[in-house]
Amino acid sequence: MKVVGLIVEYNPLHNGHRYHFEQAMALTGADACVIVMSGHFLQRGEPALVNKWARTRMALEMGVDLVFELPYVYSTQQAEIFAYGGVSLLNQLPFVSHLCFGSESGKLEELQAVARILATEPESFKQALTAKMKEGHSYPAAYGHALASLLRGSSSDVDAEMIKQPNNILGIHYLMALNKLQSRIQPLTIKRYKAHYHQESMTDAQIASATSIRKALLETPVPDWEAIRPYVPAYTLEILREEYEAGRGLISWENYYPYLVHTLVSQPASHLRRMYEMEEGIEHRFKTYILTSRSAKQLIQQVKTKRYTWNRIQRMMVHILTQCAKQDIQALELHQGPAYLRLLGYSAKGRELLNRYKKELKLPLIAAIRQDHPPMLDWDLKAAQIYSLGYRSDVRPNEWKRELSQPPLSTSDDASSFSGN
Amino acid sequence: MKVVGLIVEYNPLHNGHRYHFEQAMALTGADACVIVMSGHFLQRGEPALVNKWARTRMALEMGVDLVFELPYVYSTQQAEIFAYGGVSLLNQLPFVSHLCFGSESGKLEELQAVARILATEPESFKQALTAKMKEGHSYPAAYGHALASLLRGSSSDVDAEMIKQPNNILGIHYLMALNKLQSRIQPLTIKRYKAHYHQESMTDAQIASATSIRKALLETPVPDWEAIRPYVPAYTLEILREEYEAGRGLISWENYYPYLVHTLVSQPASHLRRMYEMEEGIEHRFKTYILTSRSAKQLIQQVKTKRYTWNRIQRMMVHILTQCAKQDIQALELHQGPAYLRLLGYSAKGRELLNRYKKELKLPLIAAIRQDHPPMLDWDLKAAQIYSLGYRSDVRPNEWKRELSQPPLSTSDDASSFSGN
Repeated sequence: MKVVGLIVEYNPLHNGHRYHFEQAMALTGADACVIVMSGHFLQRGEPALVNKWARTRMALEMGVDLVFELPYVYSTQQAEIFAYGGVSLLNQLPFVSHLCFGSESGKLEELQAVARILATEPESFKQALTAKMKEGHSYPAAYGHALASLLRGSSSDVDAEMIKQPNNILGIHYLMALNKLQSRIQPLTIKRYKAHYHQESMTDAQIASATSIRKALLETPVPDWEAIRPYVPAYTLEILREEYEAGRGLISWENYYPYLVHTLVSQPASHLRRMYEMEEGIEHRFKTYILTSRSAKQLIQQVKTKRYTWNRIQRMMVHILTQCAKQDIQALELHQGPAYLRLLGYSAKGRELLNRYKKELKLPLIAAIRQDHPPMLDWDLKAAQIYSLGYRSDVRPNEWKRELSQPPLSTSDDASSFSGN
Repeated sequence: MKVVGLIVEYNPLHNGHRYHFEQAMALTGADACVIVMSGHFLQRGEPALVNKWARTRMALEMGVDLVFELPYVYSTQQAEIFAYGGVSLLNQLPFVSHLCFGSESGKLEELQAVARILATEPESFKQALTAKMKEGHSYPAAYGHALASLLRGSSSDVDAEMIKQPNNILGIHYLMALNKLQSRIQPLTIKRYKAHYHQESMTDAQIASATSIRKALLETPVPDWEAIRPYVPAYTLEILREEYEAGRGLISWENYYPYLVHTLVSQPASHLRRMYEMEEGIEHRFKTYILTSRSAKQLIQQVKTKRYTWNRIQRMMVHILTQCAKQDIQALELHQGPAYLRLLGYSAKGRELLNRYKKELKLPLIAAIRQDHPPMLDWDLKAAQIYSLGYRSDVRPNEWKRELSQPPLSTSDDASSFSGN
C-alpha cells in the first residue's frame, strides 16, 4: 500500500493546494494521503487566518485521510527546524511511503544534489555563511550566498539562483531531514503551479497564492469573498465564512497588536531577551518602536533590519506573544523530533489505517487531551488559548474549552468515532 | 505661614472631598493647600476612573495650590506603605505645617493612642497577628483582631471596633509615619461626612461615596451623568465628560481584562510568582480561574479567598499588569520614602511657594521628564503607558507622548509657566 505524506499550512486551502494534492496522489498512485499541518502559528511567524479545526475541515473535504498537527515548537521556526519536525512526524507513521512537496524547481535531482552537499556542511560553507552574516546579511540571505558560492565551486551544475526560492529551500531541508533520519520515505517534488508564494496580486484564472488570497480577505473592512471565489474550492469559502460569522476570525497580526503593546511595554528588556529567537539587543528595538507604532505591520517595518527579515521579526513576535523562552525550547530537545502524534482529523480510510498500525506507533497518539500529556503539547494548548484572544470576546472562552475537549474531526462518510486513545 | 497637606485619590473629586478640603483650610487657618495624589493605580488596586492630569485639573479647580504625584510604588499598596509614602512626601516639603485626614472616628487623640501602642509593636501584638493569619484570616482582618485584643488589654479606653474602619486605619498609619519620621507636621482629623467609603448607593442630598459615584458611571452602557450631578462639583462633571468624549475613559478594571487574560495565560506560574504581593501559590488560582472567567470582576470573585481580600487580589492584578516584581520593589528601598517630587499642577500661590523654597528641597523636583530621572519614576511612566491601554485605541499613542512631555498644569489665574526644572 502506498500512502503519501504532505507538510502543509493550508492558510487557507486554495486551488494550488488542491492541484498539489491531486498530483501527489496521481504521481505516487497512493491509496491514502496523510498531512502534517501547522496549528495556529505558522512558519513565517503569522497567526493562521482561521483556526486549525477549520483548516482541518478544509483538508478533509478535499480528500485528505489523516491530519496531524505539527507542534507549535516546530511550526513557528526557520525552514530547517520546521522541515525536520514535519518529516520526523511523517517518519513516525509506518504506513507513509512517500513525501511529496512543491518547489519552484520541480527537479528532485537538482534539490537532492544540494541536500547532499549541505548534509556534510563543508568547512568552506560554514566560513562563507559566517562571513556573510558578519557583513550584516540576514540568515536566509547569507545562507543563500554561501550556498551559491559552494555550488559554483562544486562539480554540480545546479543553478545557484534556484536555492534562493523559498519552496526550494524548504524542499532541500525536507530531503536533508529524510537523510538524517535515514528514512524509508521516498521523496518527490512537484513544480509549483504558476503563482509564487509571495505574489500578492491575483493574475491567473484559477490559481492564486495564499498570500494574495489573505490580502483580499484582510485588507478591506469586510472580507471580499467574491474576490477569492475563483481561487479556492467551494468548501474553503464556506468554512471561512462560517468562521468569520461565528466571530472566530479572520485573524491577522493586527488582532494581537494590543497584546504585543502591553507585553513589550510591561516587560523589561532583560525578560524579553530570554524569548526564543531574540538576539543581539533587538529587544530594545521592540521596546523603542512599540511606543510610536500604530499597528503590527508598522511595528515590524520599524523593527526590521537588514539582518533580521520580516519573517524572523514575526517569529520573534509569536514567541513574545506566547512567552516562549529560549530555555523552554532547549528543554524540549527538538532534535529528537515531535514527542506525540496529535490527530486533528480523519476519514474512514484514515481511521482504518490508524487502527491497523496502532500497535506499531512509537509515539503517543493523541486524540483527546489528558492531564499526563507530553510537555511539548503544552505549547500547542497555550498557542490555542492565545490564538483565541483574536476572536470576538464572547466566543473566546468556548474556544478554550474546545481545545481541551474537541475530538478529532471526521468526514461525513465515517459516522463511527475514533477509538485511538 | 500655614500650609495644609492632604493625601488623596480624588477618584473622582466629589462634594465630600470638597467638604474635607474646606474644613481643612478653615480648621488650620492655612494659606495654601498641598496634595499628594495617587497617579493611575490606586490603593485598593484599581485603575483610576480618569487619568491623573484630569484629576489634577479637578483639584486645581477646587482650589488646591500644589499637586504632587504619589509614586506608583506607594500608591498601590496596603495602608501602611501607602500612608508612609504620602506622609514622607509631604514631610519633604518644608512649607507644609499640617496634615489633615478624614476618619470615621474624627477624634485625633483616640487615633494617636492606637498609633502610639502600635509604634512599639509589642510582642503580644505580633503573636496575635501571626496566630490570626494562621487561622486563615486576611491580613487586614488579622490586624484588626490582634489590635482589638491588644487594646482590650491596654489601659486605654479606645473602642476596639473603631480600628476596623478603613479611614481610621489609614489615619493611624499617617500618625505612625509622622512619628517615625519625627516630622514637624501637625496632624488633625476631620470626621468623615455621612457617606461611608464602601457605601454603594446614593442616599444623601449632596454627599455620596466615590464608590457609589463610580458605580453610577460604570454600570450602564453610557455613563449616567445626571445620577452623579448632585454629588460632584460642576467642574468634576465637566472634566469627566471631556475625558469620556475624548476616548480616555471612563476606566475600570474591565478595560484591562483582555491584557490580564493574555498575561495570565502566557506567563508560567514560576514567573507570575515573582510579582509583588503574589504569595502562597495564589498564582495557580489566577491561572486556573482566568480560563473560566468572563470579566475582571468574575476573576476576582473566583480567585478571592478568606485570607486574600478583594483589594489585595486587585493589587496583585495591578502588579501583574505592570509586571512589577518583588525584587523591583525591594530594589527601591521604600523605607527611604519617595525619591522625587513629581509636580502635576500648581496655582499662582503654589508656584510662589515652590520658588521660595526651591533651594531647601532635598529631593529632585520633577516638572519635566528627563533621561536621567530616578529609577522609581520609571514605574510611574510605565503605569501611565499601561493605563492608556484602557483608552480608545486611536488616542493611546498620543497619551504616551503626553506622559513624557506634559508640563505641570496650572490654574487659569497663572499665565506664567513653572520654572522649577
